[in-house]
Amino acid sequence: MSKLAYLGPRGTFCEAALRLLAPDVEGVPYANVTAALEAARSGTADGAVVPLENSVEGAITQTLDELAWGPPLLVTGELLLPVEFTLLVRPGTELAQIKRLTTHPAAHTQCRGFIERELPGAVVVAAASTAGAAQEVAAPGSPYDAAISPAIAGEYYGLTAIASNIGDRSDTVTRFIRVSPPGLLPEPTGADRTSLVVFLQDDHPGALLEMLSEFAVRGVNLTRIESRPTGDGIGHYFFHFDCEGHVSDARVGEAISGLHRLSSDVRFLGSYPRADAVAPQVRRGTADADFAEAADWLSRIRAGRV
Amino acid sequence: MSKLAYLGPRGTFCEAALRLLAPDVEGVPYANVTAALEAARSGTADGAVVPLENSVEGAITQTLDELAWGPPLLVTGELLLPVEFTLLVRPGTELAQIKRLTTHPAAHTQCRGFIERELPGAVVVAAASTAGAAQEVAAPGSPYDAAISPAIAGEYYGLTAIASNIGDRSDTVTRFIRVSPPGLLPEPTGADRTSLVVFLQDDHPGALLEMLSEFAVRGVNLTRIESRPTGDGIGHYFFHFDCEGHVSDARVGEAISGLHRLSSDVRFLGSYPRADAVAPQVRRGTADADFAEAADWLSRIRAGRV
Amino acid sequence: MSKLAYLGPRGTFCEAALRLLAPDVEGVPYANVTAALEAARSGTADGAVVPLENSVEGAITQTLDELAWGPPLLVTGELLLPVEFTLLVRPGTELAQIKRLTTHPAAHTQCRGFIERELPGAVVVAAASTAGAAQEVAAPGSPYDAAISPAIAGEYYGLTAIASNIGDRSDTVTRFIRVSPPGLLPEPTGADRTSLVVFLQDDHPGALLEMLSEFAVRGVNLTRIESRPTGDGIGHYFFHFDCEGHVSDARVGEAISGLHRLSSDVRFLGSYPRADAVAPQVRRGTADADFAEAADWLSRIRAGRV
Amino acid sequence: MSKLAYLGPRGTFCEAALRLLAPDVEGVPYANVTAALEAARSGTADGAVVPLENSVEGAITQTLDELAWGPPLLVTGELLLPVEFTLLVRPGTELAQIKRLTTHPAAHTQCRGFIERELPGAVVVAAASTAGAAQEVAAPGSPYDAAISPAIAGEYYGLTAIASNIGDRSDTVTRFIRVSPPGLLPEPTGADRTSLVVFLQDDHPGALLEMLSEFAVRGVNLTRIESRPTGDGIGHYFFHFDCEGHVSDARVGEAISGLHRLSSDVRFLGSYPRADAVAPQVRRGTADADFAEAADWLSRIRAGRV
Repeated sequence: MSKLAYLGPRGTFCEAALRLLAPDVEGVPYANVTAALEAARSGTADGAVVPLENSVEGAITQTLDELAWGPPLLVTGELLLPVEFTLLVRPGTELAQIKRLTTHPAAHTQCRGFIERELPGAVVVAAASTAGAAQEVAAPGSPYDAAISPAIAGEYYGLTAIASNIGDRSDTVTRFIRVSPPGLLPEPTGADRTSLVVFLQDDHPGALLEMLSEFAVRGVNLTRIESRPTGDGIGHYFFHFDCEGHVSDARVGEAISGLHRLSSDVRFLGSYPRADAVAPQVRRGTADADFAEAADWLSRIRAGRV
Repeated sequence: MSKLAYLGPRGTFCEAALRLLAPDVEGVPYANVTAALEAARSGTADGAVVPLENSVEGAITQTLDELAWGPPLLVTGELLLPVEFTLLVRPGTELAQIKRLTTHPAAHTQCRGFIERELPGAVVVAAASTAGAAQEVAAPGSPYDAAISPAIAGEYYGLTAIASNIGDRSDTVTRFIRVSPPGLLPEPTGADRTSLVVFLQDDHPGALLEMLSEFAVRGVNLTRIESRPTGDGIGHYFFHFDCEGHVSDARVGEAISGLHRLSSDVRFLGSYPRADAVAPQVRRGTADADFAEAADWLSRIRAGRV
Repeated sequence: MSKLAYLGPRGTFCEAALRLLAPDVEGVPYANVTAALEAARSGTADGAVVPLENSVEGAITQTLDELAWGPPLLVTGELLLPVEFTLLVRPGTELAQIKRLTTHPAAHTQCRGFIERELPGAVVVAAASTAGAAQEVAAPGSPYDAAISPAIAGEYYGLTAIASNIGDRSDTVTRFIRVSPPGLLPEPTGADRTSLVVFLQDDHPGALLEMLSEFAVRGVNLTRIESRPTGDGIGHYFFHFDCEGHVSDARVGEAISGLHRLSSDVRFLGSYPRADAVAPQVRRGTADADFAEAADWLSRIRAGRV
Repeated sequence: MSKLAYLGPRGTFCEAALRLLAPDVEGVPYANVTAALEAARSGTADGAVVPLENSVEGAITQTLDELAWGPPLLVTGELLLPVEFTLLVRPGTELAQIKRLTTHPAAHTQCRGFIERELPGAVVVAAASTAGAAQEVAAPGSPYDAAISPAIAGEYYGLTAIASNIGDRSDTVTRFIRVSPPGLLPEPTGADRTSLVVFLQDDHPGALLEMLSEFAVRGVNLTRIESRPTGDGIGHYFFHFDCEGHVSDARVGEAISGLHRLSSDVRFLGSYPRADAVAPQVRRGTADADFAEAADWLSRIRAGRV
């Protein structure tokens, strides 16, 4: 039976994502993104599930940098997981008894309305993670009465949910990715996404515009661009790009080959089914059949058959 | 005498930046970026100094989001501060006596080589900030023997530096900005930078390329682009742009007016002298004199004087 | 009463165009485009009507070059005239009697089907113009039995039309322009066209793309581009551009100011109502109101009122 | 022995070009460009030499339209021929005796200075071609005393040159092309040119910019663009493009395949050595080796070998 590493401890949203992405696979928690990815690289696990971005907090920069700089891994799947916070207590605790509450600061921020309304006098103490908060509440002699955590954490730590979906906004989403060691790519599904990292050849003005033109000319839509520092000083960045389509699509292949030619380095991170299953808009003249027909035409004219 | 809020506690790199940016001004520490900026907005302080990006860690997203979403502030200055870590101890402690060390996790990461080499057996405990680590070492009965902190923290907490510049790489830099309430902009110096936030009108493919073209056509070079989530779900982003030049430059004014026309919203964050004093390359035909001459020409031809 | 020069002799399509463009004005024929435009420049006439392009033959290069290099004139109107050929004979001549036919070679080409079908044995002799052909048929002792000419030529030379609309295709059109000495431009009508000549700064690759981008970024659509040699050797060209809109439109003004800044020279040839009265598609953010609002915004932010 | 058709009559600049392009080949004069190209198509000749553009007059539109619309031919060579006019007379005629002069109107225009200076009282009569003018002077009982013609015409018609290089400017050049029936292309020489005709898919604004971007993104420089009417009414054009490089170059092949995919039709007109032997500037990342390396890379990543 295969195993996937994930960002632990047990009971994280990341574990919830793993269960949806790979229901039949055993999850193994790791202390941080780097450790989870290292497990995938070393073969200790068969892959990993880690967060990539959150619709409120933005990119998980540790994930971005690990994918860019560490030994290569391939993204083979993605999942959009709604961030639903649950108020967990030891069995028997009632809302009115909650004096000391623990959770991760981001969760604190995102549940501020609920806390002010329902737990106005409670002291909130920062935990390292929302799952860790649940773990602490479950510990014998815990100083905390409740944790704000993923529902899944209740299962692990024997806690009871006394309020669900307590975030101030209901539409916060985290995007998780499944990564695997280099190997066969997922087959194209017609609704795929491709991720890559581009290091510009130099920092000449217009280099980014040039990169975007490589996509635009082949009718490939970008869905995300994220800049990260190269480490060589302020003003020097590299880029994560997500685009529509699969690297086996002719237009995607030509576009990223163009990026490869023009840039210092392109690291291909994978092509995989989009979580939202949205098929790309394929602009006139950029379908695989158009590329195949054009290649035939080019062969003919190169042979002088006009 | 004027006062500037900064990211505390006392002894942070942010305070070191403030001393360089505004030597004669009193600094007032705040617990986080939001609080420091709020002090500038409310008039409790005359402005604030906060970190914007680090050459290794990347953007300080709390700063980006506060500038984008909070009540408006203007960036009026910037500073590039080398990140130089110092090993601080209580007077009399020697290197060999250090068993327990505290610092911020990022500093831990960046001083890993020194620690392995010089303090191989030491336990490292995470602190909330590098300045806070120094504060803890100085506290009576502290469980820690040493802190990795900015040199400035030694002054405040009565600690002694027994090793300086202990980071694994010597070129890490943090960019700090000074912000002020809306009011007169800094005068152009010939080597300025302009910062803005752009919310796209919609997410049509090519919207970002369109934005970059507004800069490119007027010969305005971008020095930085940073995407951030709008909060409306994965796939929806807004952008921070830094470009060369001052908003009073004709080419910059026309470029950002173009952005304003095409986008849902542009928030101008300020024009201010570049810390590196690098003058922009002004492309043929895009100097102020060229714009003025072209405006005259346009007036003439509109009047039929050809 | 005012007078307009036109491309003669009497009875040309150009005269027909003049009658439609300026019904109440006296037309004065000139031997060629240069002479007609010279009459407009010198004040001998109040303006001129000359052909600019034909939907089959293409540009009238003499007109393009005169407008680009000669003393400045303004285009103040345009007309699209269907090219309808008429077979003219001396009164009494019948179709079967036509043995020798004269017309301009272009008309010969365009009426080839009619001639083969209806006048299979006729000899066709080249004339300098279609109107001149009619003139020759009318001359005493003419060696010709018929002319292919504009209908209007029949009036002048006392000839009878025995076949009308004899061209092989019925949709050939010539675009005529009215030019005037520099002076007030025609008022904007909401469906205008602007013509200009652009001399590139140098011949660097991409210069043309740069020019087109100046239009594209401001949402100004080109309706025509024509390259002409500068005279400095093969490979050196300048360009005639027609675009949608009036120079008094903000987007057009900014676009051609941009061209002016980047190019060696821009000669403005005029803004005038489109013959087809097609209103331009005004892209989001490029209407005059958008430019005005953006200018206000720019003034505010430059004053620090953010 | 092979034969090439050319634009006659004997003694034209076109014949002079043919002698330089193909010294060992017999030239056969034809009355016009269409007839010469038809001879090449039908096999009556093995190819043809015709003028394409002149550095003062611009394009030879008949050549452009024949290449675009007629049965396909391939351009296999080009020549830049300086236009040097010679004053030809019957042997024994002296300059002072020249009262009546004949030549083509374009030559008349280009030798205006010489005529005013040296032949102030002479009557100038228009001829159909400069070579034809020489032929007329040589005819028994000719009403003309002299012709302005190519030097080569003197040989044919037994005339004597009494003044050479009499054009007002010495740098006028005509570009001639050699065309052949479809068949093997000339081998790449490292300094080649490629010609093509592009019919846009539709007339949407920005279609031309799109076309130019296909070249620009692959680093292919255009050396010429010429618009011609499609015949479907004013405002509808197709384009002749000349670009640097050979269709066997990867960057050229990919660029014109892109045009082919996006446009209604692309007619390839040929790749052939440049007359000026100027090697193209090959932008970083666009040499054949770069394309080959990128293709390998793409194969690897498509197989998941990252």
